[in-house]
Amino acid sequence: MSAPCDEGDAIPSQDELRITSLGPCQFESPLARTLKLGEEGGAFTLDRSRVLYQIEFQEGEEPPRLAFERAGPRERIFFNPKDTRAAIVTCGGLCPGLNDVIRSLYYELKSNYGIAEVLGILYGYSGLNPAKGRPPLVLADGDVAEIHHEGGTILGTSRGPQEPPIMVEYLRELGANVLFCVGGDGTLRGAHAIAEEAIKRKVPLSIVGIPKTIDNDVRFCFRSFGFLSAVSEADLVIDRAHVEAKSVENGVGLVKLMGREAGYIAASATIASGHVNFCLIPELPLVLDGHDGLLAKLKRRLAARGHAVIVVAEGAGQNLMEPTGATDASGNRKLPDVGPWLKEKITSYLAEQRVAVNVRYIDPSYHIRSTAANTADALLCEQLARNAAHAAMAGKTDLLVSNWNNQFVHVPLTVATGHPKRINPRSDLWSAVLALTGQDRW
Amino acid sequence: MSAPCDEGDAIPSQDELRITSLGPCQFESPLARTLKLGEEGGAFTLDRSRVLYQIEFQEGEEPPRLAFERAGPRERIFFNPKDTRAAIVTCGGLCPGLNDVIRSLYYELKSNYGIAEVLGILYGYSGLNPAKGRPPLVLADGDVAEIHHEGGTILGTSRGPQEPPIMVEYLRELGANVLFCVGGDGTLRGAHAIAEEAIKRKVPLSIVGIPKTIDNDVRFCFRSFGFLSAVSEADLVIDRAHVEAKSVENGVGLVKLMGREAGYIAASATIASGHVNFCLIPELPLVLDGHDGLLAKLKRRLAARGHAVIVVAEGAGQNLMEPTGATDASGNRKLPDVGPWLKEKITSYLAEQRVAVNVRYIDPSYHIRSTAANTADALLCEQLARNAAHAAMAGKTDLLVSNWNNQFVHVPLTVATGHPKRINPRSDLWSAVLALTGQDRW
Amino acid sequence: MSAPCDEGDAIPSQDELRITSLGPCQFESPLARTLKLGEEGGAFTLDRSRVLYQIEFQEGEEPPRLAFERAGPRERIFFNPKDTRAAIVTCGGLCPGLNDVIRSLYYELKSNYGIAEVLGILYGYSGLNPAKGRPPLVLADGDVAEIHHEGGTILGTSRGPQEPPIMVEYLRELGANVLFCVGGDGTLRGAHAIAEEAIKRKVPLSIVGIPKTIDNDVRFCFRSFGFLSAVSEADLVIDRAHVEAKSVENGVGLVKLMGREAGYIAASATIASGHVNFCLIPELPLVLDGHDGLLAKLKRRLAARGHAVIVVAEGAGQNLMEPTGATDASGNRKLPDVGPWLKEKITSYLAEQRVAVNVRYIDPSYHIRSTAANTADALLCEQLARNAAHAAMAGKTDLLVSNWNNQFVHVPLTVATGHPKRINPRSDLWSAVLALTGQDRW
Amino acid sequence: MSAPCDEGDAIPSQDELRITSLGPCQFESPLARTLKLGEEGGAFTLDRSRVLYQIEFQEGEEPPRLAFERAGPRERIFFNPKDTRAAIVTCGGLCPGLNDVIRSLYYELKSNYGIAEVLGILYGYSGLNPAKGRPPLVLADGDVAEIHHEGGTILGTSRGPQEPPIMVEYLRELGANVLFCVGGDGTLRGAHAIAEEAIKRKVPLSIVGIPKTIDNDVRFCFRSFGFLSAVSEADLVIDRAHVEAKSVENGVGLVKLMGREAGYIAASATIASGHVNFCLIPELPLVLDGHDGLLAKLKRRLAARGHAVIVVAEGAGQNLMEPTGATDASGNRKLPDVGPWLKEKITSYLAEQRVAVNVRYIDPSYHIRSTAANTADALLCEQLARNAAHAAMAGKTDLLVSNWNNQFVHVPLTVATGHPKRINPRSDLWSAVLALTGQDRW
Repeated sequence: MSAPCDEGDAIPSQDELRITSLGPCQFESPLARTLKLGEEGGAFTLDRSRVLYQIEFQEGEEPPRLAFERAGPRERIFFNPKDTRAAIVTCGGLCPGLNDVIRSLYYELKSNYGIAEVLGILYGYSGLNPAKGRPPLVLADGDVAEIHHEGGTILGTSRGPQEPPIMVEYLRELGANVLFCVGGDGTLRGAHAIAEEAIKRKVPLSIVGIPKTIDNDVRFCFRSFGFLSAVSEADLVIDRAHVEAKSVENGVGLVKLMGREAGYIAASATIASGHVNFCLIPELPLVLDGHDGLLAKLKRRLAARGHAVIVVAEGAGQNLMEPTGATDASGNRKLPDVGPWLKEKITSYLAEQRVAVNVRYIDPSYHIRSTAANTADALLCEQLARNAAHAAMAGKTDLLVSNWNNQFVHVPLTVATGHPKRINPRSDLWSAVLALTGQDRW
Repeated sequence: MSAPCDEGDAIPSQDELRITSLGPCQFESPLARTLKLGEEGGAFTLDRSRVLYQIEFQEGEEPPRLAFERAGPRERIFFNPKDTRAAIVTCGGLCPGLNDVIRSLYYELKSNYGIAEVLGILYGYSGLNPAKGRPPLVLADGDVAEIHHEGGTILGTSRGPQEPPIMVEYLRELGANVLFCVGGDGTLRGAHAIAEEAIKRKVPLSIVGIPKTIDNDVRFCFRSFGFLSAVSEADLVIDRAHVEAKSVENGVGLVKLMGREAGYIAASATIASGHVNFCLIPELPLVLDGHDGLLAKLKRRLAARGHAVIVVAEGAGQNLMEPTGATDASGNRKLPDVGPWLKEKITSYLAEQRVAVNVRYIDPSYHIRSTAANTADALLCEQLARNAAHAAMAGKTDLLVSNWNNQFVHVPLTVATGHPKRINPRSDLWSAVLALTGQDRW
Repeated sequence: MSAPCDEGDAIPSQDELRITSLGPCQFESPLARTLKLGEEGGAFTLDRSRVLYQIEFQEGEEPPRLAFERAGPRERIFFNPKDTRAAIVTCGGLCPGLNDVIRSLYYELKSNYGIAEVLGILYGYSGLNPAKGRPPLVLADGDVAEIHHEGGTILGTSRGPQEPPIMVEYLRELGANVLFCVGGDGTLRGAHAIAEEAIKRKVPLSIVGIPKTIDNDVRFCFRSFGFLSAVSEADLVIDRAHVEAKSVENGVGLVKLMGREAGYIAASATIASGHVNFCLIPELPLVLDGHDGLLAKLKRRLAARGHAVIVVAEGAGQNLMEPTGATDASGNRKLPDVGPWLKEKITSYLAEQRVAVNVRYIDPSYHIRSTAANTADALLCEQLARNAAHAAMAGKTDLLVSNWNNQFVHVPLTVATGHPKRINPRSDLWSAVLALTGQDRW
Repeated sequence: MSAPCDEGDAIPSQDELRITSLGPCQFESPLARTLKLGEEGGAFTLDRSRVLYQIEFQEGEEPPRLAFERAGPRERIFFNPKDTRAAIVTCGGLCPGLNDVIRSLYYELKSNYGIAEVLGILYGYSGLNPAKGRPPLVLADGDVAEIHHEGGTILGTSRGPQEPPIMVEYLRELGANVLFCVGGDGTLRGAHAIAEEAIKRKVPLSIVGIPKTIDNDVRFCFRSFGFLSAVSEADLVIDRAHVEAKSVENGVGLVKLMGREAGYIAASATIASGHVNFCLIPELPLVLDGHDGLLAKLKRRLAARGHAVIVVAEGAGQNLMEPTGATDASGNRKLPDVGPWLKEKITSYLAEQRVAVNVRYIDPSYHIRSTAANTADALLCEQLARNAAHAAMAGKTDLLVSNWNNQFVHVPLTVATGHPKRINPRSDLWSAVLALTGQDRW
């Protein structure tokens, strides 16, 4: 398990996990040549294959049976490849692996399914609004062959929605039957709106979401692509903060990491680094004052060891700060910036306590978001993208493709969106943070 | 899914998965202070917690119920920490993450459980034979604080077994109650022999295995530590081979990767790299000759594209080569070297066919084995090691700790050893290789 | 030429370049065994070896003859190794290579010269004030063997001076005959004060400076250690900023780099990266407004290309900003922060001009300072440190060791300190920046 | 000094260093806009600027006056940019930085000089033979914008010469006035032959060499591009070998590095790594046997320390091995492979001596050659390439551009080719190796 996580929320019903289909599958998959392997079913996935939602249980009790539809190539498909045009759109902030996903979608659709065209929509959903004057690219081999070891997205990105009727109409004009929406919660809600609009208009348009959340906070996605690359970069940054902290008397390395609603990056980087003394996440209210508050603990830690490293997720400490009241273009509320605020709290408390201190504050956000996918994410992107292609070609819609307990599954967009996945303080992940930092013991 | 895998073998019975215990747990865990969190059971794991073996099923059928014991900290433990001495031994070839495992075991046992001493056994099982004259290190904070970002093992390693009675006796002399054996199939079989010997002698000695297999071929271990680091390094090597291949007319980059019995590294690195045209693994017989043989396919590939990259696992092609008849110190049969053999086959075939060719052969084995653990493996090692400590302190023995479907579980040593885990040619993993390389289509 | 540079200041006289000596060299160097090589002089450096200050001239004119004393091992030395104690102190901000320098000094002095003891002074000059209660470490092999691939300094550092009489007295108490001062301009001025004090007191104490300036701004040091590592990290950061800038419409990546008085890091990273459009350095006044000001040029660049990358040295733009009036513990004036100021200027100008823009600001200072030395710097540190040891053992004092035109030379501390080296706008280096960015042509 | 080196050979006369010119410079340089800077001469280089060959001398003696012509942009140029076509050819084995050179040549010629066309000749000199049927690429921005952080060469490469009359004729057909030849000794000799042929035919063709030698063995080139990247990669490989060696009893890490005639990579990587115990280079005969032979020294080292790391340049040990008698396509004699030979010598000697030993042999050649340029090389390539463009536009021919004592200079091809630069055993570089390894003291 690379990065354990937990679902804190209400469990959906089996019925809510059912995937919408555009209709019966009338075409034989062109993958048969590769996957048949001479046996019944071959390496194709049956449409009734399921993957259990929960795999832990107590002996003597009944294991729960709730299950997702399993992803994978279907023997028969809905779209006739030679008449199929697919479009890809990438939205929201950068995340390692976007180019990997674009590349693998392209190759699966073009080389393996042999569809007519893959369109690259430019600059997020705004590229699906013809009024913006950004016609899509018709992608070719040369556009994608070498992009997977580069950060960013060759298609560009933007924040915020567009009107579903306009987007559906424009996709029809472009002759696109399939749309892959790569993005976070807002993007996936937008994808659902497009899928609904298409169904309302009886347009046979498959909308497949590929969850992109560097914070790893989309529900029913065990590990989202880019997350481990971000943890890896964060790990390096923490090591640098540790070097800075150790090099001076009472050095404090303070690193702010991504994580608005969920502290997965902070917690995982803490475990991987092995050098963090305090890890602060949004899931737990921050206590600064009093004997058991962070400030007094930090003072005791400095007295004992002479240096400390603190990792704070950007959503931590919101319980103590004034909300900004503002929102960004994606509609997310703007958080007050916990990094400089916490630096000031530490500095002024220790000044009061007459402890000379050197706080080195590092905010590596853009540095991390723009890195290329590491190998673990490259593997994940490859398979997420190919499974997304399979889902679309089989005429499924209004779903996302996700990794669940090491299997790829289909999850209805409505079930996965609307509120984030967060760390359970009783999970293995958080226990590991506590075991490693000893932060409750100072 | 970072690195999909499959069990090709017979499924054990529920009874075979039962874990041996040294006796009742009479002591309260010192972890209670950290993990209790004010609620019933806190973040402790109940001894009757289970994790399902198989999580995929077909709708309409009954999901299988076979399950592993779940790993994790127990509320009550068998050993009294203040009287407990633990020993750690690392065996066999190098693998990224060995130092991470040593460090996390040390900190969990010393800082969190507060045991008396952690001993580092030197140079593998030979350090458990007093005749070798290598007394163990008594580890201290300074020995381990900074080792986790370095390759190798600070304890050293060696191949081959020692006599169980001698080792059990020596562990008693050293006052050790707990032994962590970090190694591959042979090491784990040795660990089982020690556990049996201790039980026979009624010595309350907990033997906990931590599977170390860079090839990722230990059964019931979804992903072994070091594997993803190896894939990551292999990915880099393949990129270099690709650069070499593209830079000359009819350039062929030939990369031999680890994988004696199982091709996980070759297959995963192929997917991650995105630049491989032919991936050869031990699970599938190599076909060189004929229209559909590798050589003719390679010739067609070169004619079409002017260059090619081939990845071959060290255990591939054995169906065509003369066995050496030799074995190494660990008792593994020595394989004839597929790399130079294959290079020669390619060169002479293409010479015959009057195709001028430049084959660049790369064998990065030691380079890969000696690298440090990457972030994904650092996370895994941390949690494997801490769960191994929990199992030992709870008085469990003759087991290994493993990651299964993103949970940590206990697996009896007898069940996990004796024959390797291998890639199922009908698995998602292999399908992904075929989709990406298109190697069946030339 | 890795990183071209220029001296903007008055040229010293040959007399000013003379090195102070503690007295005649009465002992044979223990290096004779290794360096003699059976010939006259062997690989030893003669004390009258010189290295030309200026190597460029115009045909028909006379090449200038001003020259530095050449560094290197002397056949006869001043200190008797078995009675010699050396101390090492590291001061000021972190810089890649500090640990390399410590390690190489240690090995040259202990293994090759065989001196009695090498002392590590803790936390900068404050460790030379016994009132601070920080006795030095007596270094051993195990302390330094593995430190050279790690950032920071194992000795710790601090800013600011101590009283020379106190330090000289304390060094006598410690039995130290030799002190290596690794630091920037302030540290080297402090070293000169110690050397003067020792001469005044007739204490035979050799004071050898090793210039540490990540900004590369110490005079008569062509390239200071850590500089190329910093450029290398800065290059990576700029690439990330480029990825961010390209990924959105009118994206601007704004990277602030180190360089208070001299823009060597900004200029060199600009050349290495190949992705910078505007490079701003302290040596040239910043022009923001008007047709040829940065803001209008940026607007034209965005209109033409849709994105831009700007690199700004921390000392740039001071001509337009209000001084803070404050100083730090080292006595350096605190500069107003050009990064956020420039970001605000860009944002408000483009808002006025009704150009929607996305500015991503990155300030990687601590991230860069704490990195380990790269290979080029590892080579430099090794040789700087060994040459510093040679100078000290030969009884030279009040000097620094420097790299000049690919040779190592001795420079009197008084000549090298007091005002920084800066980029000449007519130099090859700046011409290369202009050629690459085309920043004067928008 | 990044990588010290020495010229072992006879010193040319001032006359031999004179550069051939195609004729008077009738055109004003288009760079005037950027470089004029409002003053006389601006940042242009005068044609009579010189750079001293030797910069070290003994006090009391006269500094030598031999000097190279300084490289740099000339105020007046020979070719009219709008009528100029330039061609680039890359030859021989891969070397980090080839793509950087291509990119910087392209941008300087197209963006700054504004010439008509830059042609990319495919697959080395064979692309200048029309009989091979490989017409050149007409390069555009999109071909080169992102290539500089990638290994290899986008133009491809090959070994061996073509007929000068054919190449000159073909260049005329292509309308090329300028040819940049990027390659090693053989390539540069080929370039000279082309230049001679053009002069003979009175074709105004400028031939400018850019020395490419990963071994760093071209005369009058202090540091060749790619060399430091190779050292950096070699440094990493040695660290891995060190990890392997330390992890077992009597572990020996044996690393073969590039260096046919000169051991610069081996020596520099030895210094940078800090972990090498024996460094073997072609400049010094290998002594295996006897009390002071490598084998006995290694045995003593193992007895004392339990492990050892040996670095051997590929050209070392040739004094003890049977020549192969063969040559490669470039006409270089094929060396017998010192790596496996030395491994066998060590293994059998220690077996005889009844010392159990584990030799791990690593040959990273292709891995190193195909890496991308590091930052230090990126800086060098940028400036080498731009200076090469300046030389060509000024109508100079039959020369190479080189870095000498941190200045860029012009060197006639005849002077630089024909016999390699090698390490002087009395140089600082070799002294540093001896100081660090202590290899003469076992």
